[in-house]
Amino acid sequence: METVGILGGTGPAGRGVAARLAVAGHDVVLGSRDAARASDVASAMATRGSGTITGGTNDEAASCDLVVVATPWDSTIATVTPLRARLDGKIVISMVNALTREGREMVPVYPPRGSVAAQLAFALPQSAIVGAFHHLPAAQMEDLDSGIDADVLIFSDDAPARERVAEIVGASPGLRAVVAGSMSLASPIEAFTAVCISVNIRHKAHSYVKMAGLVE
Amino acid sequence: METVGILGGTGPAGRGVAARLAVAGHDVVLGSRDAARASDVASAMATRGSGTITGGTNDEAASCDLVVVATPWDSTIATVTPLRARLDGKIVISMVNALTREGREMVPVYPPRGSVAAQLAFALPQSAIVGAFHHLPAAQMEDLDSGIDADVLIFSDDAPARERVAEIVGASPGLRAVVAGSMSLASPIEAFTAVCISVNIRHKAHSYVKMAGLVE
Repeated sequence: METVGILGGTGPAGRGVAARLAVAGHDVVLGSRDAARASDVASAMATRGSGTITGGTNDEAASCDLVVVATPWDSTIATVTPLRARLDGKIVISMVNALTREGREMVPVYPPRGSVAAQLAFALPQSAIVGAFHHLPAAQMEDLDSGIDADVLIFSDDAPARERVAEIVGASPGLRAVVAGSMSLASPIEAFTAVCISVNIRHKAHSYVKMAGLVE
Repeated sequence: METVGILGGTGPAGRGVAARLAVAGHDVVLGSRDAARASDVASAMATRGSGTITGGTNDEAASCDLVVVATPWDSTIATVTPLRARLDGKIVISMVNALTREGREMVPVYPPRGSVAAQLAFALPQSAIVGAFHHLPAAQMEDLDSGIDADVLIFSDDAPARERVAEIVGASPGLRAVVAGSMSLASPIEAFTAVCISVNIRHKAHSYVKMAGLVE
């Protein structure tokens, strides 16, 4: 069972994924610029199942077998660039969405290469970039009793890495893995997060995407 | 009850919407460059409920109370531009997605203004452009016994038009209206269609989007 490091892991998105992966048996390290705060956040999290959640530096998180990027989009590249050597040869999962607030809506911001995942692929040429976990409501992810039953759309140009992430997602409670395809789908999958959040703001809901009618 | 014209209405997408709107009681005109063919297509369609489906020219379709644009994306603006006077003051629903095939995937194409809906708003400045019906599997829409139970994400900068379209969608069998927000969400909603189709190609499915956990 891989250890999993989460860069920028103390935010709601990172904590939500950490909670689910720990239940599935992974030992998870929440990485942060502030390791002491990451330890406090990790200690406060409920765990269930065999996996642990601890806090550390982003460098410690990047030393795990598999690394999830959960930083704000505008600090993603600055965070991973000094960690490149540690990330070489590893699966790096991007759950980052480039969004900005416009009144009562979240709207997408398109990075120069179309998606944050594509920016990561350029910054980390020796890593296998996989996109996942974009559309999930963070609080419902962290609350293991929320009853969430969400689809996780997965994309990568590296087919074995994509399949391994699909296995990990599918083994996590409340999540179904749906392989969408290649990095050509990164931009629409990331940008659609703006729609999910805007729907939730407008309808005061915590909804999430299901691909209905899809039988695996 | 409004009459509804569908520009480019003889294709699978247009027929699917026509079938559902006719059941809801709308008289629908399938518009085409070839009116005789449109009549043949309309005659071959099963109808149920009080609405009718007939075929005609795109000009006749544009004369209806409410108009749906269901043309291929690369002929959308050329189709609507000569109809501008007829479309002035009306709600014009865009269900057009700009996509192209890349191997086994469909991938998004981003028009210069970010979305086909935004291109339409520029071409038809006196019409109320509303986006809807993007993510629906066409054959399951046309087959009234398919059991589809899909969400239709609706966006517009014109709030009353958006609400009216939501009412029409909500009154159509198998569809739930979900108002997403403004035209700022046009690009991610249109582009996400590439993900839906790619998932369906890869998984040999006819899935569609549900915003799970959203209680209206």
